[in-house]
Amino acid sequence: MQVIMDLTVSPFGVGLSVSKYIAACHEILEEAGLKTNLHAYGTNIEGEWDTVFAAVKKCHEKLHDMGVPRITSSIKVGTRTDRQQSMLDKIQSVKNKLE
Amino acid sequence: MQVIMDLTVSPFGVGLSVSKYIAACHEILEEAGLKTNLHAYGTNIEGEWDTVFAAVKKCHEKLHDMGVPRITSSIKVGTRTDRQQSMLDKIQSVKNKLE
Amino acid sequence: MQVIMDLTVSPFGVGLSVSKYIAACHEILEEAGLKTNLHAYGTNIEGEWDTVFAAVKKCHEKLHDMGVPRITSSIKVGTRTDRQQSMLDKIQSVKNKLE
Amino acid sequence: MQVIMDLTVSPFGVGLSVSKYIAACHEILEEAGLKTNLHAYGTNIEGEWDTVFAAVKKCHEKLHDMGVPRITSSIKVGTRTDRQQSMLDKIQSVKNKLE
Repeated sequence: MQVIMDLTVSPFGVGLSVSKYIAACHEILEEAGLKTNLHAYGTNIEGEWDTVFAAVKKCHEKLHDMGVPRITSSIKVGTRTDRQQSMLDKIQSVKNKLE
Repeated sequence: MQVIMDLTVSPFGVGLSVSKYIAACHEILEEAGLKTNLHAYGTNIEGEWDTVFAAVKKCHEKLHDMGVPRITSSIKVGTRTDRQQSMLDKIQSVKNKLE
Repeated sequence: MQVIMDLTVSPFGVGLSVSKYIAACHEILEEAGLKTNLHAYGTNIEGEWDTVFAAVKKCHEKLHDMGVPRITSSIKVGTRTDRQQSMLDKIQSVKNKLE
Repeated sequence: MQVIMDLTVSPFGVGLSVSKYIAACHEILEEAGLKTNLHAYGTNIEGEWDTVFAAVKKCHEKLHDMGVPRITSSIKVGTRTDRQQSMLDKIQSVKNKLE
């Protein structure tokens, strides 16, 4: 089952500068071979359900290892059976309507 | 790794009445032996990471089997290493401050 | 325009115990005369669009006044024109399918 | 109060192809003079609290006018008092850690 996900990882209890934790998580996604697109409020991810969710779990484990005591991830995950669709398809589909 | 999750499953392409799909998903959570609490915009879930996420995947599979062509789930998932906390603890902790 | 909202306010930079901030926000919602239902991952709110969003803004202002340097709110907000629906209707509608 | 928002508008009851509604909403954001960045699961928006939320309300009104009976928007909205930060700052801050 192919998914398109949007992932926002929020570390609590480590102050205001959280970018190093987001970066650590981003590296895990890259190492998992997933297509990613970083935006200002999270990361779009494309891949197989199990691979994607294994990477999300690894992010929590890694950040706890780095000393983050509390993590909340906010996830949107979409699956569809009517047709295949990539992250780029979704964006292009809206952009076509704007032209 | 113990999690507290908030899960909102949104079925697309099946009209406006989606409660039967939410109910089908709720039954999967119950069968998985997870603690749940249904609210107006989703379901709080408490359990082990793998058990909880396996149930979420099963929800997507079940709803596609029921004919839903497109599903988006919105998930908040929290883990913490500083102490154990249940869904009820979280609510009680706020209520104590209100008294 | 009537809305049903789910609001999760996340204060950053004030440590791990955030319940007093959630409680302060909850009082603002109550003072605004809004129907609310606190759950483990947020608060369901029912009311008129402008009243509800004015209260959310007031939450951010209040928490910054209390010394929170950074706040992220996660909001789900639903409107519908086909029929009126309350928070309780939404829950009841799923529960009816479970019986 | 300056905000960075992530907005995902979900129209229900109009079938599977929703890009024309997302496009209509995107035009409202542009007309409001807001900085936007479209991604595969929503739109990042930067601007003043009242301007941004007025645009979100206008999106719901517009889509109902276009015949969408039911809309759920999923919103993340961040405010901070410690320093100014743009959408690009947020992304750059993570990218710097990746190099």
